[in-house]
Amino acid sequence: MKITKATELKQKPDFTKLSFGKIFTDHMITMEYDESKGGWAEPEIVPYGRFDINPASCVLHYGQGIFEGLKAYKNAEGRITMFRPTDNFKRMNKSATRLCMPTFDIDVVVDALKQLVLLEQDWIPTAVGTSLYIRPFMIGNEDFLGVHPSKKYIFSIILSPVGSYYSGGLTPTKIMIEDQLTRASNGGTGEAKCSGNYAASLLGAEKAKKLGYDQVLWLDAAEKKYVEEVGAMNIFFVIDGTVVTPMLDGSILAGITRNSALQILRKNGYKVEERHVSVKEILEAGKNGKLEEAFGTGTAAVISPVGVIAYKGKEVVINENKMGKITEYLYDQITGIQTERYNDEFGWVVGVK
Amino acid sequence: MKITKATELKQKPDFTKLSFGKIFTDHMITMEYDESKGGWAEPEIVPYGRFDINPASCVLHYGQGIFEGLKAYKNAEGRITMFRPTDNFKRMNKSATRLCMPTFDIDVVVDALKQLVLLEQDWIPTAVGTSLYIRPFMIGNEDFLGVHPSKKYIFSIILSPVGSYYSGGLTPTKIMIEDQLTRASNGGTGEAKCSGNYAASLLGAEKAKKLGYDQVLWLDAAEKKYVEEVGAMNIFFVIDGTVVTPMLDGSILAGITRNSALQILRKNGYKVEERHVSVKEILEAGKNGKLEEAFGTGTAAVISPVGVIAYKGKEVVINENKMGKITEYLYDQITGIQTERYNDEFGWVVGVK
Repeated sequence: MKITKATELKQKPDFTKLSFGKIFTDHMITMEYDESKGGWAEPEIVPYGRFDINPASCVLHYGQGIFEGLKAYKNAEGRITMFRPTDNFKRMNKSATRLCMPTFDIDVVVDALKQLVLLEQDWIPTAVGTSLYIRPFMIGNEDFLGVHPSKKYIFSIILSPVGSYYSGGLTPTKIMIEDQLTRASNGGTGEAKCSGNYAASLLGAEKAKKLGYDQVLWLDAAEKKYVEEVGAMNIFFVIDGTVVTPMLDGSILAGITRNSALQILRKNGYKVEERHVSVKEILEAGKNGKLEEAFGTGTAAVISPVGVIAYKGKEVVINENKMGKITEYLYDQITGIQTERYNDEFGWVVGVK
Repeated sequence: MKITKATELKQKPDFTKLSFGKIFTDHMITMEYDESKGGWAEPEIVPYGRFDINPASCVLHYGQGIFEGLKAYKNAEGRITMFRPTDNFKRMNKSATRLCMPTFDIDVVVDALKQLVLLEQDWIPTAVGTSLYIRPFMIGNEDFLGVHPSKKYIFSIILSPVGSYYSGGLTPTKIMIEDQLTRASNGGTGEAKCSGNYAASLLGAEKAKKLGYDQVLWLDAAEKKYVEEVGAMNIFFVIDGTVVTPMLDGSILAGITRNSALQILRKNGYKVEERHVSVKEILEAGKNGKLEEAFGTGTAAVISPVGVIAYKGKEVVINENKMGKITEYLYDQITGIQTERYNDEFGWVVGVK
């Protein structure tokens, strides 16, 4: 693999004061695709730099852009690991197919990523709740106006040492059920991790923020009856002892943390259901005292307790706005496996060295 | 206005052999927005060049990207005009609001555009069906990972001399009604001219292409019963003497050519209806011989006759696959007004000099 090292290294930030996604390391991966040259070139490690992009580049006009998010950790013994990287790249290839973008060889990319993480190992923070966030992304980069798939692409991976995604850390979040705007519809791109989904979600999120909520809980586009996801997280509820989460039916991102939570819960004897979850059911469970916990799952925040859910101006307070037992259990289990405090029975942790 | 001229001008293409959106002129407009510097800077004309973009730029990950398309013409006397530019920038400001991007002063932008078109006047082709395509666009350009609106933007306008959007020119197109994939849902971004809508439409378009169709006719996301638009065009039908087009209900782009067609038809005594149009109605009208014409409207193709509509594998042939009378009338009227062959009763044509 071709590696071009940066001539000057950046000053590392104060690892005790990390926010999310604002600082980038010294190097990145780029891999270019050109249909006329037979597809993908080899990945390269290059100094973190800027892209030189034609104003007519496809990604700027027609939105061919997908991404992933995963994390690398350095454990107490200095061993560097990543969490389920292959699953991220599998999902990225699915996103690519939905957006008419080329798929890539997962082994080639995981191998290149390992080399990048190794090169940037001094950038991996080790304090509780911190990690090296890994952002693979792919953009259409042919220069044309007109609606058709690009024939040129850039695949890239950039790295960012991060703290908590939510500034409040594990403080329960307040989420608002959005009953007018929608994020994704059946037959649309909701299942793909594509840039347009996030742009579409901003207005709802801003509306929620103005009303004092941290995030939006989206409903299905057709009937606006069933909860889907939170945009940056999948959503879980504990109702009368059963852990319930919306089923994957095409408009919801198949979250890897969601999947990890489900596997851990099932393996440990919890009652778990993946199915349609209506707003009505949540409100009634709230009223009857059966809505015991709610939490979000996602790579950025891992597990995020939800303390308040609002719908049409009325609020349901969950577990007295405190983190619930199952929420805490999952947070401990998943971060424990990720940082190798706990044994990894699932084969999720991949050593970088 | 600050104008930096290109030191070397490009060779002009053969204006008799123009395709669509592949050649760009010598200059472009850029105007930058920075929240920390009080918002928009003044627009500038600069040599057509490349953008120097951070790999963490918002547009590449979170899809904050909107655009417009309009055209400039040079008439037989050498007068240079644009068609309804203010309407395009009004719509662009609406798109901006939906995507949580900043709006801009329309007068400032139209004035800058006039200066750019004037500077590039030798790039305006004059043959029938050709024009100078104008592409304003805006992208989020703050460097961060995390889902929130960017605090920095680039607004730009690039120009491209163009021929027909469809290689067949006014040959009737074949369109396929897509009954599984969706483009936009109520409460989503269908009404905004944002990049994500186009990325979402590619898979359906590729599927249609493989089956021998030129374009996809999208249905409503909730019930998949009502026709919406063609992605690059709004759709019209002539059913039993009445011109019918889907109403604007939030998931359809409010096309400016659509609006021009409606105004011309109404002013000239045609019976026109904007309402929900079901697939069932179209198929039945086709069967009963009452589907007299179908056509698309859009800036790129202006008016495009539709000769065949397919649904679930069955084809309806319209007007023996020939351009219909109303279709031809509208094409003649709109292009006539655009090129000043006809008097502009509507105040749509804006002189550049």
